[in-house]
Amino acid sequence: MFDKILIANRGEIAVRIIRACREMGIKTVAVYSEADRESLHTLLADEAICIGPAPSTQSYLNMERILTATVAMKADAIHPGFGFLSENARFTELCEKCNITFIGPSAAVIGKMGNKSEARKTMMEAGVPVIPGGKEAVRRVEEAKAMAERIGFPVMIKASSGGGGKGMRISRSLEDFDANFKNAQMESVKGFSDDTMYIEKYIEKPRHIEFQIMADKFGNVVHLGERDCSIQRRHQKVLEESPSAAISEELRNRMGEIAVRAAKAVRYENAGTIEFLLDKHKNFYFMEMNTRIQVEHPVTEMVTGLDLIKEQIRIAAGEPLSVKQEDVAITGHAIECRVNAENPAKNFMPCPGLIKNVHVPGGNGVRIDTHIYNEYKVPANYDSMLMKMIVHGKDREEAILKMRSALGELIIEGIETNVDFQFDILSHEAYRDGDVDTDFIPKYFPDYVR
Amino acid sequence: MFDKILIANRGEIAVRIIRACREMGIKTVAVYSEADRESLHTLLADEAICIGPAPSTQSYLNMERILTATVAMKADAIHPGFGFLSENARFTELCEKCNITFIGPSAAVIGKMGNKSEARKTMMEAGVPVIPGGKEAVRRVEEAKAMAERIGFPVMIKASSGGGGKGMRISRSLEDFDANFKNAQMESVKGFSDDTMYIEKYIEKPRHIEFQIMADKFGNVVHLGERDCSIQRRHQKVLEESPSAAISEELRNRMGEIAVRAAKAVRYENAGTIEFLLDKHKNFYFMEMNTRIQVEHPVTEMVTGLDLIKEQIRIAAGEPLSVKQEDVAITGHAIECRVNAENPAKNFMPCPGLIKNVHVPGGNGVRIDTHIYNEYKVPANYDSMLMKMIVHGKDREEAILKMRSALGELIIEGIETNVDFQFDILSHEAYRDGDVDTDFIPKYFPDYVR
Repeated sequence: MFDKILIANRGEIAVRIIRACREMGIKTVAVYSEADRESLHTLLADEAICIGPAPSTQSYLNMERILTATVAMKADAIHPGFGFLSENARFTELCEKCNITFIGPSAAVIGKMGNKSEARKTMMEAGVPVIPGGKEAVRRVEEAKAMAERIGFPVMIKASSGGGGKGMRISRSLEDFDANFKNAQMESVKGFSDDTMYIEKYIEKPRHIEFQIMADKFGNVVHLGERDCSIQRRHQKVLEESPSAAISEELRNRMGEIAVRAAKAVRYENAGTIEFLLDKHKNFYFMEMNTRIQVEHPVTEMVTGLDLIKEQIRIAAGEPLSVKQEDVAITGHAIECRVNAENPAKNFMPCPGLIKNVHVPGGNGVRIDTHIYNEYKVPANYDSMLMKMIVHGKDREEAILKMRSALGELIIEGIETNVDFQFDILSHEAYRDGDVDTDFIPKYFPDYVR
Repeated sequence: MFDKILIANRGEIAVRIIRACREMGIKTVAVYSEADRESLHTLLADEAICIGPAPSTQSYLNMERILTATVAMKADAIHPGFGFLSENARFTELCEKCNITFIGPSAAVIGKMGNKSEARKTMMEAGVPVIPGGKEAVRRVEEAKAMAERIGFPVMIKASSGGGGKGMRISRSLEDFDANFKNAQMESVKGFSDDTMYIEKYIEKPRHIEFQIMADKFGNVVHLGERDCSIQRRHQKVLEESPSAAISEELRNRMGEIAVRAAKAVRYENAGTIEFLLDKHKNFYFMEMNTRIQVEHPVTEMVTGLDLIKEQIRIAAGEPLSVKQEDVAITGHAIECRVNAENPAKNFMPCPGLIKNVHVPGGNGVRIDTHIYNEYKVPANYDSMLMKMIVHGKDREEAILKMRSALGELIIEGIETNVDFQFDILSHEAYRDGDVDTDFIPKYFPDYVR
């Protein structure tokens, strides 16, 4: 087992990893930027080292400084957390070269899964359903229309160089195809000087369903059930849960087997997540694979009783998985709410600043993962997540009631948060009925996505 | 189900009950003394009513005021928590008369179990092992010696009127009996003007092992495994855990069956605890039955996944048990530390006062039950418990490491606490080896029991 782990991250996930290490008797090194001198992860680790100024490129994204810190502090492994360098194949490669264990998959796998078209190809070869279409770029409307007919309507017309919704149109039938294609193409030419387009199947009102995978160095792979992350605001997850109200045991087993097969196809190692879109007919399509721990991993921990961070560390140290597929049981229901420093009244603008007073709920089945404390100043440089509140109840109904009760007890004074918005989501009839898809927030809270 | 429950208690257990009610959609009424105006339970309940001055006899122990409040606030049930009126047969009787549901067993059962000699007799009749001897008082040494021989050495010689260790001697063999008996008797005559003595089996280095019982109105009774509460300071529990390192599955089943039989013998209803002494040869003896929820119930919740407070409420409302004995599974290991406002350097003198700053640990498997918050003034009128920290790990080793890590993160500024003492217990080799008995603190921390 490792003697000392350097945590190449900040905030609550760094705190989460420090705790896991401490409980395993592993020493910890925190790295921090100049803006994070007073951050809880800096204060909590056994040792801490400043790696540069606040901008991430000069600290948390600076590979050289992090590797130098690792060598200087004599750590034998790096846990990357999520974000920052966690899915950077180059960084993983450098770790391998420096003889430092990167707690995650190999550089080769990160690279392969990070490339959308290669990931898609790999998944298709492994028999994982992908969104139909989107293979070849087209320029001419007739060619595109023929492609759309083959794929079946509705389709999404997407500019090759597009992004942020630009150069994108939905076409629902042959009749509206030409106009939509031309508009999208025009937008693309104007915005990106590129007239090449893709046509793919448009998935209507999908749920975002992702499967947690764990794989060791011996080729053992298990899935730990799904997380439903359909409650999103501008493609940002807001609230996650496990299990999903839309997934039967039969479907869980089927999707889980496919997720395991996908992981095996790339000889995956360590924790990973396979994200699917699930349509209202229960067809599911591979979206992407995240080759790291996810923000929302605690809901899986609550329903399986496993500690995913410890499992990651053990796997990286060469130990076999602690659990077999047949021993994985999903018990009860867990929900996570992300509490962010943002102002719903000002279009969710991040609002860092001084936290004057924190009071967190507690009690049976309430878990708080956070890096904030009284008089902590939330820096403006990083993402706005302050806290993850996770609850576990015997069923979805109880979990919802528990989360509402816990949110009601939470006090964060000094800055604005999205707590009331989370409460409103949990109180919404459609949410309580389990009737959610990625359109939930735009549909029921249109004021919040303007 | 009840519409509104009045909680006839204060502090963390009142908060615990309010949360359970909230999660069940039941309205709550807090009662508070003048000293508890700013207490969290007062602030958290849907409604709150002041029932009198700080001394408990004028508020939390005042039956009339509590019943009046219940009627005035239109609550249909009372949850008594622990302590105060929770084991007062007269109060339960008054509730019954006022047509208010008392969430607990009947007045008759509380009365029967509250009388030590009647409880002992009832248990013997039900086939529950009790401490041998102690049935008849003796005056003459020869008679006493014959009794001791029948019981078997070592024996405890106890003055009928004794207390606080006075008039008590341990006799280990026939040889030392006469001297010990005479000394004890002399002390008793001197101290209590009474020469009648009892002889009972002396249980050497016992563990305090208690079984949690749940019983519904339909005669269904289950046990939820044991709690080991051997870590005591002056007969006050300090740290509790489940399961016990001393209990095999075979012994758990055997003791559990006897606990269930004991509960059935008195037609027990609702939550209860049967306390045993377990000697080093794994013989166990009934000590007493607590006819209420216990402080340490969360460790049972953590290993069984059940919510004992909700179960209590459902049972009182006439619902059957939510679980069958064969479905009760003990998973992992849970430890609870009681965090008290007391000064270990001053012989654990309670030290109420203003809490300037609280920072609680969190994360995977850490549960905090507390009523304290920033700037809360701990009143001098009540017991010194501030918080229960409970952790759940996959095994005892992990739970110990987790609790050490969590205690290390806890910050309570402004008053003294026993947190360092808890840390020292958890760090002690004998504790870590599971080698504990009720003599643990006097033996390894003699300075703390002077």
